[in-house]
Amino acid sequence: MSERVVLAYSGGLDTSVAIPYLAEQTGGEVIAVAVDVGQDGEDLDTIRKRALACGAAESVVVDAKEEFAADFCVPAMQANALYMDRYPLLSALSRPLIVKHLVAAAKEFGGTTVSHGCTGKGNDQVRFEAGLSALNPDLKVIAPARDFAWTRDKAITFAEEKGLPIDVSAKSPYSIDQNLWGRAVETGFLEDIWNGPIEDVYAYTADPAEPREADEVVITFASGVPVALDGRPLTPYEIVAELNRRAGAQGVGRIDMVEDRLVGIKSREVYEAPAAITLITAHMELENVTVERDLARFKRSVDQRWGELVYDGLWFSPLKDSLDAFIADAQRHVSGDVRLTLHGGRAVVTGRRSDASLYSYDLATYDTGDTFDQSLAKGFVELWSLPSKIAAKRDRLRP
Amino acid sequence: MSERVVLAYSGGLDTSVAIPYLAEQTGGEVIAVAVDVGQDGEDLDTIRKRALACGAAESVVVDAKEEFAADFCVPAMQANALYMDRYPLLSALSRPLIVKHLVAAAKEFGGTTVSHGCTGKGNDQVRFEAGLSALNPDLKVIAPARDFAWTRDKAITFAEEKGLPIDVSAKSPYSIDQNLWGRAVETGFLEDIWNGPIEDVYAYTADPAEPREADEVVITFASGVPVALDGRPLTPYEIVAELNRRAGAQGVGRIDMVEDRLVGIKSREVYEAPAAITLITAHMELENVTVERDLARFKRSVDQRWGELVYDGLWFSPLKDSLDAFIADAQRHVSGDVRLTLHGGRAVVTGRRSDASLYSYDLATYDTGDTFDQSLAKGFVELWSLPSKIAAKRDRLRP
Amino acid sequence: MSERVVLAYSGGLDTSVAIPYLAEQTGGEVIAVAVDVGQDGEDLDTIRKRALACGAAESVVVDAKEEFAADFCVPAMQANALYMDRYPLLSALSRPLIVKHLVAAAKEFGGTTVSHGCTGKGNDQVRFEAGLSALNPDLKVIAPARDFAWTRDKAITFAEEKGLPIDVSAKSPYSIDQNLWGRAVETGFLEDIWNGPIEDVYAYTADPAEPREADEVVITFASGVPVALDGRPLTPYEIVAELNRRAGAQGVGRIDMVEDRLVGIKSREVYEAPAAITLITAHMELENVTVERDLARFKRSVDQRWGELVYDGLWFSPLKDSLDAFIADAQRHVSGDVRLTLHGGRAVVTGRRSDASLYSYDLATYDTGDTFDQSLAKGFVELWSLPSKIAAKRDRLRP
Amino acid sequence: MSERVVLAYSGGLDTSVAIPYLAEQTGGEVIAVAVDVGQDGEDLDTIRKRALACGAAESVVVDAKEEFAADFCVPAMQANALYMDRYPLLSALSRPLIVKHLVAAAKEFGGTTVSHGCTGKGNDQVRFEAGLSALNPDLKVIAPARDFAWTRDKAITFAEEKGLPIDVSAKSPYSIDQNLWGRAVETGFLEDIWNGPIEDVYAYTADPAEPREADEVVITFASGVPVALDGRPLTPYEIVAELNRRAGAQGVGRIDMVEDRLVGIKSREVYEAPAAITLITAHMELENVTVERDLARFKRSVDQRWGELVYDGLWFSPLKDSLDAFIADAQRHVSGDVRLTLHGGRAVVTGRRSDASLYSYDLATYDTGDTFDQSLAKGFVELWSLPSKIAAKRDRLRP
Repeated sequence: MSERVVLAYSGGLDTSVAIPYLAEQTGGEVIAVAVDVGQDGEDLDTIRKRALACGAAESVVVDAKEEFAADFCVPAMQANALYMDRYPLLSALSRPLIVKHLVAAAKEFGGTTVSHGCTGKGNDQVRFEAGLSALNPDLKVIAPARDFAWTRDKAITFAEEKGLPIDVSAKSPYSIDQNLWGRAVETGFLEDIWNGPIEDVYAYTADPAEPREADEVVITFASGVPVALDGRPLTPYEIVAELNRRAGAQGVGRIDMVEDRLVGIKSREVYEAPAAITLITAHMELENVTVERDLARFKRSVDQRWGELVYDGLWFSPLKDSLDAFIADAQRHVSGDVRLTLHGGRAVVTGRRSDASLYSYDLATYDTGDTFDQSLAKGFVELWSLPSKIAAKRDRLRP
Repeated sequence: MSERVVLAYSGGLDTSVAIPYLAEQTGGEVIAVAVDVGQDGEDLDTIRKRALACGAAESVVVDAKEEFAADFCVPAMQANALYMDRYPLLSALSRPLIVKHLVAAAKEFGGTTVSHGCTGKGNDQVRFEAGLSALNPDLKVIAPARDFAWTRDKAITFAEEKGLPIDVSAKSPYSIDQNLWGRAVETGFLEDIWNGPIEDVYAYTADPAEPREADEVVITFASGVPVALDGRPLTPYEIVAELNRRAGAQGVGRIDMVEDRLVGIKSREVYEAPAAITLITAHMELENVTVERDLARFKRSVDQRWGELVYDGLWFSPLKDSLDAFIADAQRHVSGDVRLTLHGGRAVVTGRRSDASLYSYDLATYDTGDTFDQSLAKGFVELWSLPSKIAAKRDRLRP
Repeated sequence: MSERVVLAYSGGLDTSVAIPYLAEQTGGEVIAVAVDVGQDGEDLDTIRKRALACGAAESVVVDAKEEFAADFCVPAMQANALYMDRYPLLSALSRPLIVKHLVAAAKEFGGTTVSHGCTGKGNDQVRFEAGLSALNPDLKVIAPARDFAWTRDKAITFAEEKGLPIDVSAKSPYSIDQNLWGRAVETGFLEDIWNGPIEDVYAYTADPAEPREADEVVITFASGVPVALDGRPLTPYEIVAELNRRAGAQGVGRIDMVEDRLVGIKSREVYEAPAAITLITAHMELENVTVERDLARFKRSVDQRWGELVYDGLWFSPLKDSLDAFIADAQRHVSGDVRLTLHGGRAVVTGRRSDASLYSYDLATYDTGDTFDQSLAKGFVELWSLPSKIAAKRDRLRP
Repeated sequence: MSERVVLAYSGGLDTSVAIPYLAEQTGGEVIAVAVDVGQDGEDLDTIRKRALACGAAESVVVDAKEEFAADFCVPAMQANALYMDRYPLLSALSRPLIVKHLVAAAKEFGGTTVSHGCTGKGNDQVRFEAGLSALNPDLKVIAPARDFAWTRDKAITFAEEKGLPIDVSAKSPYSIDQNLWGRAVETGFLEDIWNGPIEDVYAYTADPAEPREADEVVITFASGVPVALDGRPLTPYEIVAELNRRAGAQGVGRIDMVEDRLVGIKSREVYEAPAAITLITAHMELENVTVERDLARFKRSVDQRWGELVYDGLWFSPLKDSLDAFIADAQRHVSGDVRLTLHGGRAVVTGRRSDASLYSYDLATYDTGDTFDQSLAKGFVELWSLPSKIAAKRDRLRP
């Protein structure tokens, strides 16, 4: 029986051309799988038909937007996942979901090999292949860009030779990956890290510097899951989508940074993630109100490790599972409302309220009603600082 | 010989009244020590004379602005110190400096007791007393507000009885602590954490929502120390002061959060820290460019512990010293320029350049000149994901 | 209605005397609660009657040995809990269990106050009171030794005055706390930390230096729980008890250390914990075989925090719950057999086997059958060391 | 000019044969470099001459025993470096030292390539090549075993063909790496992890089970460096060598474990490290006495990372430098004497004394002379447990 190659298909030039190319290279058939993770592009059915027109034996499209929001974006928000304190892991979140659907398609259609379009110097190859080896280690992998030095120019030539039904004229200077959780942009002039980004690179966000009316939003969380906006119950997908519109319109969520890639190099990245930044901001503040201090302090190290691990492609890994168990437990009481003002590129918390609040007005106030017993403090302070005090005495005697 | 009480003196009502009060309580003499940490208030000589007019036996004023900037603010910036990812440790930084000068004054003037104005439910009592016990554990401590339940009303009555030369009429609804690194505001209506702050609480920052021209600044760092603005060599104090003005004029650095106090309660805090936020933002990005990945990842846990420790009052402690040694070593190559746009409440990095950069255009670019050998990636990816792969195989066999 | 005081009762002099003393001090009634955590002393019914003879209004005895083993010792073993890499948390584990039963008795008998015998400079006061405040913050606490400076000499005098039915003649130079998980000894001559312990301080362990035949044991674990010895299915309590006998007979588990107490001082402690050390040794090695590398590395920091937290009295705390969730997930595959030789004070693993093993002979062997593809290594090594290499190049240019 | 290959030369069959083989393969000359790291084998001059007899163009021998002890073993002891809580990093410490001398020889003799004998599935290839890329990234690397699938059988055939002056008859079933810090043994029957080691695999240690007189030793440390044994001032090398003899004679330091290799597989390893285990045991206890609690707690995470990093081949890396700075600072007061009994496979601390001790008899004792103020404890306990208490109250209201 001939080889069947399951291709992660985007509908664009590169992966369309890959269909006949992979068929040629492997002597087998290509199954195109396109996964909608909220990237907001063409109609799914158009994409499905294009793959067939390019020669795919099977063409599958999957609407995974709700799944992506609930099972990938929400956990990332619960981990306050910002790699290097900045990057909300857009692509790092979509890759494992796509892998899941590739593996399912391989099972359904008898695929023996999986193909993706990643190069050999980025993070995404790791995310694809680490995910595949966890979900089905028997699948082989072909990455034409990396393994066959396949380039855009070669793809255009090949498309013209084969007469493929693809528009090869559109030439964008940008390399873009986008999904519900945000949008990543790379482009030549930003590889000089002294250059600032220009307005043209952005699509999810309006210019924050332009004057406009502020927007105010109340986000409701139940055990760490966003469940309503301004009192209207919504699914996680609907919440992320609406916040992308509203926070994006206020210029919230632009990120410009130099980043440490897993393959060992530093790269310059520009992102926009209006909903992600808004939700993480709100969630962190609700944790401030509802999570006990020692747990909150330790959770920062758990959150950091979670973000590194997912960035590094290890979504499907034993450590990820155990970190998830910790985070899930810590979210039990993260319930309540957070009010934010969205304006001028900023998502600013202005109020929070929760039935599970650990903030106690009676203990915190300096006004009438104060129930905090200040006489306890002296003993606390003395014993708290006793180890340093003993060490300081010792140090004075030993110069 | 009679007791001599060294008083941390601010020049305000509470500590002015404390002078005769402490003299009465202890039967001794009071030495007033006022430390200028850039709080931008009255003339130091006026303060000095007021203490004497209230009955102090000695009155000392110390201009510690340069010392505060160089030895307290800069190390905090090198640790990217944001307690709970938000609070740049304003008061937590000034207390140990004040303690240092109180201890020096006790030595100079034969003080046997130190007095401070902190209550028993805040963090500052810990910072004062932990610092004192480290620098001179033989000194006794009196905290009238905590130990004698001394209140503002009592202070006013006492002042009027004694005819002290203090204006008791000025009644501010705000409790404020401010210094070069920022300003903290507490007030009754903010103790309802659903209430948002009003414009009136702010003094270091203009309203970010007001339209105005953006400002652009280039900050130069040498081994983790800010040394110039827009190419003009300046001291750390001058840099912080100028950035407070320029970033403050753009509304940068407002913070509103619920915070975990060391004494075990949550409190609501509003801060403004224009220079602190600008410098930390710039410094973090310069570290992204110049610090190696594994070091950067581990430094986050060092930074977090540094911030907690200083927040918790343990500036003078063995762990602080060893964390400082780590951070100092990590700063060796944090040199270069960072360009930021200050506007609309945001300090946004738009460019970075450094002779010590680890960013390599040749390795990062996808254009001509790419020197990254993509053939290495396949082996890397395989071995990187091998432990998860082996575990995944095992897990499939054990449901 | 009169006060009812629930007393943590041991049956010994101090707490027997406390019964009439607390009744006098509070004008109320005393409910004695004795909890058997495997301390292997007197008959429970004898203890129960003695409390009544001393004037207790109610006397409750609880056989909590199985509960202690299953719910406190086993979780500690799963966390490989060795405070300061040495101390297996004997007393720190029993205190929360005792607190649980005190709170239950208070509920049953209408207790309003709880009393324990701890001093003010140890850790156990914290464990009692932190536990009580978590389980029932409405209960008041009296600690006669700390709060009334109650001493052994006072207790003897008081017992003689009241004619209590207690033998006050027995004078041990040792202060001992013991339970199923081990035994702690303090005594005057060990407070000189240059002195070594003498054979007389030990009771759970034979002299390891004496020649004897070695013992060999196979411990079977199922998902992190010890379930059998030498193939015989046993409860956790039975396993710990048998290992105390067998490993104790070989001198396994003696510990002599200087320890950091929570109250800020260092103390010298001598422990014996034959079963605890044997089980933790076996469990760690089974984790080496069955837990994936990244998870194992991170779990060490979770384990360390777990041990500190429990040592510090915070068994009932939100962070403890979330750490437990992490550990529980990590134990899923910790199943299999570990064979140990017990001899000469050492518990040495000599074999391990597991259906859930991640050790693969085929990948590890250098003999025929090797399936590891060495050609992958070159790329891995290059990219693994790339960040350090880039940094080294930079460093050579910047002396 | 022809290629010059710098070969890490052991004097054994494999690397002797590599001399003519590498000359053939590269068409260049081979420079043999043998480094004495205390492996206790043949005379250095014999080794030097054998390389020349096998055709080396240059043959260099380096006595690096003192350097190895002072600059590699002592820092490992200061980090209490036990990978996976067990393995004292024997080979991981010698590799960077050997690399240093290879790079020096390459500079002296114009070497352009470096060759080592490691396979592609072990850790040592990473340690060699990561070290080389840090110290001189221009050097090429050849690893015949990995890159040319060179095996022992091929080597023997080749040696016989070429008539090399090497004894090829000696066939040991063991693969051994040994140096001053310990000895590692791998062998076929241990690849079944249920098999226990037999007495024959050990060379540094006597059978711990044999009856013999105990030995007692006092180790003196000055700022974390061992400086004397039983009062006799010695160099680090002399101390390690003497402790290997004395502790080895008592069977101290045998280790048998399943270990996580950097290349992603688990392997079974047997080690002996008498001096390493004795020194680390003593050092940890002296830290217990002289290092303040918070510093000690954080240092455990620094120590763990240090051990992982060095195991993972990143001795020459920015993170290693910064961790070293932390550890060096933490060692300032680690001075004093530790007395141990060496017997029956155990190194047991029985006494410790230090001018820098933080242990205070007056604070710790329960006898006359107690200076600890127990009245401080109540306030401490209350505030210490306040966050958990507030959370517990909340939790009761929210099931």
